Amino acid sequence: MVEVEVKARGELGRVREALLELGAEAQGAGEEWDLYFNAPDRDFSKTDEALRIRVRGGRGVLTYKGPKLDRRSKSRREVEVEVGDWEAMRELLGRLGYREVTWVRKVRERYRLGAFTVSLDKVEGLGEFVEVEAKAEGPYGDLLDEAFRLLERLGLAPEEAIRTSYLEMLLQGGPGR
Amino acid sequence: MVEVEVKARGELGRVREALLELGAEAQGAGEEWDLYFNAPDRDFSKTDEALRIRVRGGRGVLTYKGPKLDRRSKSRREVEVEVGDWEAMRELLGRLGYREVTWVRKVRERYRLGAFTVSLDKVEGLGEFVEVEAKAEGPYGDLLDEAFRLLERLGLAPEEAIRTSYLEMLLQGGPGR
Repeated sequence: MVEVEVKARGELGRVREALLELGAEAQGAGEEWDLYFNAPDRDFSKTDEALRIRVRGGRGVLTYKGPKLDRRSKSRREVEVEVGDWEAMRELLGRLGYREVTWVRKVRERYRLGAFTVSLDKVEGLGEFVEVEAKAEGPYGDLLDEAFRLLERLGLAPEEAIRTSYLEMLLQGGPGR
Repeated sequence: MVEVEVKARGELGRVREALLELGAEAQGAGEEWDLYFNAPDRDFSKTDEALRIRVRGGRGVLTYKGPKLDRRSKSRREVEVEVGDWEAMRELLGRLGYREVTWVRKVRERYRLGAFTVSLDKVEGLGEFVEVEAKAEGPYGDLLDEAFRLLERLGLAPEEAIRTSYLEMLLQGGPGR
């Protein structure tokens, strides 16, 4: 499964208004705490991969993300697995030799619009961002074009799309530098 | 958590009778399919660790087992996590670089007796075995002595306890060699 994804800084109040005008459906909001790991056999910051446990409402999901697939977006191959006990998963990864890098904490508001999920993120230490995402099974070029057009309809400039992950931003010392 | 465990070959019909005479409580039976993995950064057959996905009744559990903790038994540190979709977990492990070693398939009948779970296993390609297990948090010497005594009460000789895992037996070419 490919996660087709574009991201940009945005003022969430304005983007929310634009979303509702377009008829997007609110899908709820909540805190997401993501714990990122690095591998014992390679450096994910060099291979452009990621492994994380996401905790939302007490429930855990383990996610692997492959390297970015194109030069325009953050689209990646992604595998997600729900886990019964995220703290046991954390311990298991530790036993396998995975090292904890850092937590990324945010409040995420989700909207559905056609094939897309639009997330309004307030990320601790980084600020406000908008992500436009969809899942694809095969070639995803058309879907990606559509994602960029949606970004534009939300008042955000496609040429300002960011390919840096929240994790990378945090490790680079936050948005201020 | 330490899994205190002793194992021996046994004729399941006789052991079942002995269990019921001792007042053990039947806890059901079912097929268990275990898929074992090896790590990208070390050889689990050398470090005496194990990582597997167990599939039972369509549900999956990911388990890590540390090296054996003593010279008498199969007791190990163990971390278990239920997973929502075992096939996604299998794919995720593959992406991380874990290689599939083999499946171990068995029919397991479970009994409860005091602190112990007694499993009557019919393992594909290997034959019939009895496992006596309990969970411990700290020192487990007394519990292990008790496990050996229970093995004896089931008509099995403690000195014939086996420390080889089903996986190792299968990789060594089965019980016939």
